[in-house]
Amino acid sequence: MIKLALDMMGSDLGPEELSKSVIRFVHEKKDVTLLCFGQKDKLTNLEGVERVEIIDCEQVVPMEISSLHLLRMKNSSLMKAVKAVKDGDAEGVVCAGSSSGLITAATLILKNIEGVERAGFCTPFVTAKAGHQTVILDVGASNENTPTELLGFGKLGSIYAKDLLDIKNPSVYLLSNGTEEGKGTQEIKDAFKLLEEEKSLNFKGNCEGRDALDGDKDVVVTSGFPGNIFLKSVEGTASLMNGYIKKAFKKNIWSKLGYLLARGGFKEMKENLDYRKIGGAIFMGVNGIVVKAHGSSDEEAFYNAIDLSYRLVEHKFVEDIRREFN
Amino acid sequence: MIKLALDMMGSDLGPEELSKSVIRFVHEKKDVTLLCFGQKDKLTNLEGVERVEIIDCEQVVPMEISSLHLLRMKNSSLMKAVKAVKDGDAEGVVCAGSSSGLITAATLILKNIEGVERAGFCTPFVTAKAGHQTVILDVGASNENTPTELLGFGKLGSIYAKDLLDIKNPSVYLLSNGTEEGKGTQEIKDAFKLLEEEKSLNFKGNCEGRDALDGDKDVVVTSGFPGNIFLKSVEGTASLMNGYIKKAFKKNIWSKLGYLLARGGFKEMKENLDYRKIGGAIFMGVNGIVVKAHGSSDEEAFYNAIDLSYRLVEHKFVEDIRREFN
Repeated sequence: MIKLALDMMGSDLGPEELSKSVIRFVHEKKDVTLLCFGQKDKLTNLEGVERVEIIDCEQVVPMEISSLHLLRMKNSSLMKAVKAVKDGDAEGVVCAGSSSGLITAATLILKNIEGVERAGFCTPFVTAKAGHQTVILDVGASNENTPTELLGFGKLGSIYAKDLLDIKNPSVYLLSNGTEEGKGTQEIKDAFKLLEEEKSLNFKGNCEGRDALDGDKDVVVTSGFPGNIFLKSVEGTASLMNGYIKKAFKKNIWSKLGYLLARGGFKEMKENLDYRKIGGAIFMGVNGIVVKAHGSSDEEAFYNAIDLSYRLVEHKFVEDIRREFN
Repeated sequence: MIKLALDMMGSDLGPEELSKSVIRFVHEKKDVTLLCFGQKDKLTNLEGVERVEIIDCEQVVPMEISSLHLLRMKNSSLMKAVKAVKDGDAEGVVCAGSSSGLITAATLILKNIEGVERAGFCTPFVTAKAGHQTVILDVGASNENTPTELLGFGKLGSIYAKDLLDIKNPSVYLLSNGTEEGKGTQEIKDAFKLLEEEKSLNFKGNCEGRDALDGDKDVVVTSGFPGNIFLKSVEGTASLMNGYIKKAFKKNIWSKLGYLLARGGFKEMKENLDYRKIGGAIFMGVNGIVVKAHGSSDEEAFYNAIDLSYRLVEHKFVEDIRREFN
């Protein structure tokens, strides 16, 4: 039986929406128990559902929170859900609330796996090749990272690509401002050398923001600050383009008719680019599975976040990291 | 009479393509003389054209070049074109070749305007609001920048927005990994304070990669390394989305028919997002106008790059920077 702890609070659409994912998930997977942490009166849908346990928590962690403030919220759904992993009551935690809160709680409560210098926040991205994902880390757990931390991110990303994406010898790239060796900050140049020397990795050199998502890359390593800029500028540009596409189809009666004819292709495009299918970002390198679902998660997105956590447990992701780093 | 120096070599489509822009430009603007630097036998189209001077240069600077190597290429079209500005033979230089070569040459030959700590490479971006541009700098002249350099970028970007985009009190943002004050690296936090204290700027706080191009921002300030990641990830995502749009319209006979009906709207979208209209990036803060046209510039793009340089001279951009920084 796989046990997962879910923070049901703090998402944009509320615990009622996330409850639907919970019901669907236990219905489809018979070997799972879901511990649902949150305000009991908002989780009434879950009462009596088989293999679902409701743990009443009055406090809800706000989106922006300092470490100090968070540590005082011991009775919050987020803190208690992470604590459940620490206590061995669950193997993974899923949260659609505060990213910084989840990262802080996981770092302080679960602690890094021995040998892991820095845990990384990793996002699998859809790419120009339909069906091919590229995992990029760190996208914002840190600001700056040392070369050895970047080397560690390369290893963490590779383990993920092997375990979850079923890629035997994942290609690893370093995000820089040019593809040639010697491009970038001093940290990048030093990390390049370390990654090149690490024979367990299939390091291919630098890549630029332009080709990170071309579908030919499995793992892209970056410091947290530029990684976060990358993540959000991809999101922003996709949303900008979507806005222009909508406008283009609304231009006149002909373009509206054109949409009706072309919508099959655009539906397929939307499916290929749907972040909800990915489920969430993974905070890698701590003692437990930690998945951050999107703040605006609907039933489908949160379902996939639970599923991502489930598959990471199933593939013994934490044990694989321990083996690599110890 | 406005004199501009053009490096005709080093672009993807070659000097013949750029020559077309030259002919069109002198035909349309009667108060301009264009000094065309390049291999004479490749510029035969320009022979005898009024207000066009051909300066034969045998050497062509390759895309990737070290500073040391560049300094030895004194007879290259790039070095001679930049030198023409230094010598007062031209007020601006336009180049579609090596970015790093142009930046190095401009820095060493033209030197920074007094009071400018660091010149910045600035790209105007199209945004979610059709017709509204946002200027972002630095996008790659530096790797790391000090807080005072970032403050300087805010001033340079504001002068550009006033002069060229006709915005009276341009809003200035700082690119970070969160909108709240206190987000980002130490340099970003310190730059935030300096920008806030500078009363000549309309500083609005941090912005994220997600909303930098929402069309509500005039100037976005960033260090060169994350700025370059931003620039290229926007380009990469736009190209990824364009690929999916094409595929969507090619799905079947109906979607192809849909394209025929909707193409008016998509033509408009293409025009709104056309980087060629912007002309190029500006290397700001040196003694002279320096415009980098896209390496793949066609007639339209290089024409607009010449025009951008022309307008910067016309608006006395360099004098305005001197006034602000001295």
